[in-house]
Amino acid sequence: MSNEKNVSAITDMDKDFAQWYTDIVKKAEMVDYSGVRGCIILQPYGYAIWELIQAQADRRFKETGHVNVYMPLLIPESLLQKEKDHVEGFAPEVAWVTHGGSEKLQERLCIRPTSETLFCEHYSRVIQSWRDLPKLYNQWCSVMRWEKTTRPFLRHVEFLWQEGHTAHATEEEAQEETIKMLNVYAELCENVLCMPVIKGRKTEREKFAGAKATYGIEAMMHDGKALQAGTSHNFGDGFARAFEIQFTDKNNQLQYVSQTSWGISTRLIGGIIMVHGDNNGLVLPPDVAPTQVVIIPVAQQKPGVLEKAGEIRDLLKKELRVSLDDTDKSMGWKSAEYEMRGVPVRLELGPRDIAENKAVLARRDTGEKITVSLDNIAEAVKDLLADIKRSMYEKALKSRDSKIFTAFGMEEFERTIEEKPGFIKTMWCGGNACEERIKERTTATSRVIPFDQEKISETCVCCGGEAKYMVYWGKCY
Amino acid sequence: MSNEKNVSAITDMDKDFAQWYTDIVKKAEMVDYSGVRGCIILQPYGYAIWELIQAQADRRFKETGHVNVYMPLLIPESLLQKEKDHVEGFAPEVAWVTHGGSEKLQERLCIRPTSETLFCEHYSRVIQSWRDLPKLYNQWCSVMRWEKTTRPFLRHVEFLWQEGHTAHATEEEAQEETIKMLNVYAELCENVLCMPVIKGRKTEREKFAGAKATYGIEAMMHDGKALQAGTSHNFGDGFARAFEIQFTDKNNQLQYVSQTSWGISTRLIGGIIMVHGDNNGLVLPPDVAPTQVVIIPVAQQKPGVLEKAGEIRDLLKKELRVSLDDTDKSMGWKSAEYEMRGVPVRLELGPRDIAENKAVLARRDTGEKITVSLDNIAEAVKDLLADIKRSMYEKALKSRDSKIFTAFGMEEFERTIEEKPGFIKTMWCGGNACEERIKERTTATSRVIPFDQEKISETCVCCGGEAKYMVYWGKCY
Repeated sequence: MSNEKNVSAITDMDKDFAQWYTDIVKKAEMVDYSGVRGCIILQPYGYAIWELIQAQADRRFKETGHVNVYMPLLIPESLLQKEKDHVEGFAPEVAWVTHGGSEKLQERLCIRPTSETLFCEHYSRVIQSWRDLPKLYNQWCSVMRWEKTTRPFLRHVEFLWQEGHTAHATEEEAQEETIKMLNVYAELCENVLCMPVIKGRKTEREKFAGAKATYGIEAMMHDGKALQAGTSHNFGDGFARAFEIQFTDKNNQLQYVSQTSWGISTRLIGGIIMVHGDNNGLVLPPDVAPTQVVIIPVAQQKPGVLEKAGEIRDLLKKELRVSLDDTDKSMGWKSAEYEMRGVPVRLELGPRDIAENKAVLARRDTGEKITVSLDNIAEAVKDLLADIKRSMYEKALKSRDSKIFTAFGMEEFERTIEEKPGFIKTMWCGGNACEERIKERTTATSRVIPFDQEKISETCVCCGGEAKYMVYWGKCY
Repeated sequence: MSNEKNVSAITDMDKDFAQWYTDIVKKAEMVDYSGVRGCIILQPYGYAIWELIQAQADRRFKETGHVNVYMPLLIPESLLQKEKDHVEGFAPEVAWVTHGGSEKLQERLCIRPTSETLFCEHYSRVIQSWRDLPKLYNQWCSVMRWEKTTRPFLRHVEFLWQEGHTAHATEEEAQEETIKMLNVYAELCENVLCMPVIKGRKTEREKFAGAKATYGIEAMMHDGKALQAGTSHNFGDGFARAFEIQFTDKNNQLQYVSQTSWGISTRLIGGIIMVHGDNNGLVLPPDVAPTQVVIIPVAQQKPGVLEKAGEIRDLLKKELRVSLDDTDKSMGWKSAEYEMRGVPVRLELGPRDIAENKAVLARRDTGEKITVSLDNIAEAVKDLLADIKRSMYEKALKSRDSKIFTAFGMEEFERTIEEKPGFIKTMWCGGNACEERIKERTTATSRVIPFDQEKISETCVCCGGEAKYMVYWGKCY
């Protein structure tokens, strides 16, 4: 009954992937729409996943020497305009505050679309000497971009993210930081979110407004499209020159600092949904599942069942996020509900299990059920969660690799991207004209120039000229 | 040298308390001013204190069954206007967004000054049945109020806070929640921030725009002024009627929900500074000190000193926030610097100490130094931190209680508040006219009608009419 209702309400992912996605975020109560176009409400289940991602990322930032700060929400128009490329990139899509209370402001203020300009202004005041360097700051906040089309987690007008902003004495140090943080992101995606990523450099066309070089990690969704999961930018001294951020070096010479910035956002949650989800709903990586184990008592009205279930809950609670559903809903409803919410492990326990000192563990990722002894139930559950992590990653990797194709000419490129959704690996001359032409003809964009380069041919897939790089191309979110 | 410079740069608190306060927030690098009037930058040291307060509060919210969510930053003007008292209270002081990108918006959007209206709109959509209740939501975010005069931590245009918003099936349950959260705040202030507070109800004049009743906790600063440290509001069904938040009860009857909201903010950091600080700078409560113990090696160039200091750091690090200053600055500079930053314990360690298997612990709150054995150094430091917590609270309580006075007539009231800064305890008839008159004549406002009522006389301090309540009055931040 309720069971059937829940499951049938999710659209088949292979029939309509976009609708399947929307069904899941609504059914799992991750997100609600608000009265402001493109601004969403993160409901408890969606926000709890973000909190767990935050905690994992924040620990890594602190372990690599970063500290958190909070910059203002508003940027004066004149400040936004200080770096030429930056303002061109962002000014068209910001929200403008023009009135405070009943008074018209003398200068318009925009709601931060990103905070480079604020960090730079602050750095120009607090950095004087080489002793003040490096500055390794990060901020957790919301930012706003007046996007036309929006989609839960993937693209909103307002979204939650973190933005790291660092200043260094040398360009080498800034480059090292840029790559270090890209690696932190990749490790987080792979080990915590079980989401394989390809690391590399973005082309000139795809780089951040104001950056010298942008690096990114690209993940592949179930439908073969790419999701840019995180970016890390090396600014060189471009912003430092625009904002006059100078320091006296050890030889008493005035120098410009070199800077970086890097960010990940709630779109990672969109990535989790689209990499791991299936037709029964969400499949959450154990490390960011708000509930890692749900205990479902069988025949709970029978004496001793709820007591034993409570005991196991209290035992598991010491190390895991666990809940016990002792409501009067049916077993079938509960199983379908927690499947839909992506809870990694369901622990089923009835009178017969208790008599035999056993419990049944059902894993969300494969659907497999195993029977384990209650004697070392905590170990059994932890081992299973570790195994789920491993196999979720393996499965995602296999799925991705099966959708990476090569193309040696434009016809092959066009046919492949039409017939087989995924990434296309080609050689490229490095020219902007070819990149533009590929986009026009296929709607695919360059995802990254991967660090792991292979020379799959001598010539550019587009112009046939001398190949410089191997590039991954794809349609993207 | 540097030592002298640092210390002398802090204004004497008894000569100019406001300047002393400003000196501390700047010297300890807690806050920097931004280019937008009234918006501050929380620098790493200030933000780290907020993170520790957040962690302590968030744990308590979760233990009492609350979950976190994130609501949009922007509120459409029509939504803000739905509850009459609420819009009157907030509309004059909000910032208005009128343009998105290059387009003029059809309806103005304000930056949230508080989020009652957003929570209510969401609740009206997601609450249908008694099974959906209670909703126990909380949000950590920044809010904006276009204040004319601002002061770091105490009053900004933008500030960080948490706002709890709950919906219940009955009025009794809402009242219980309102008081429960007030008690959570009081416990946090007293046990974590070592800051005694007086709990009570606010008068009609001082209650929140749209509330049926507001409760508050009031702390007393070193200069005798009051700081409202947290508030908890019972809304009854006022917002529910304005926003049509109804549910079907167990008897299948349509009912309005009863609601609460409650908040604390970064102004608690202002409270910490003004309750505990002294002429040498900050004095931080151990539970929210970013560094609880700083190790200062003596004669660090001597063989073995830095090694031993590093060993102790690694040992203490397992349970405490500890740092080791092995820079080439002088002992004197380091002592003054960490005093100014309010680090609870300085651990000094030189060659002679090492030879004798000892270290010196200097406590920030009293300046006292004790010598302890290295054998159980971790225990010694933890015991000392616990003792510092106790005595910081005792000292603050004594100081506050020595500044609580009584008055039985207006002349006595005026003279006392003029001569002895502090709280004044009087009887009050409960009339708005007397409350207004007291404010006009003394600039003091009613702080709370405390839960602990005493009948100190039969008549109102102002009109001489029959007394209803005992009230604390005071000048406030």
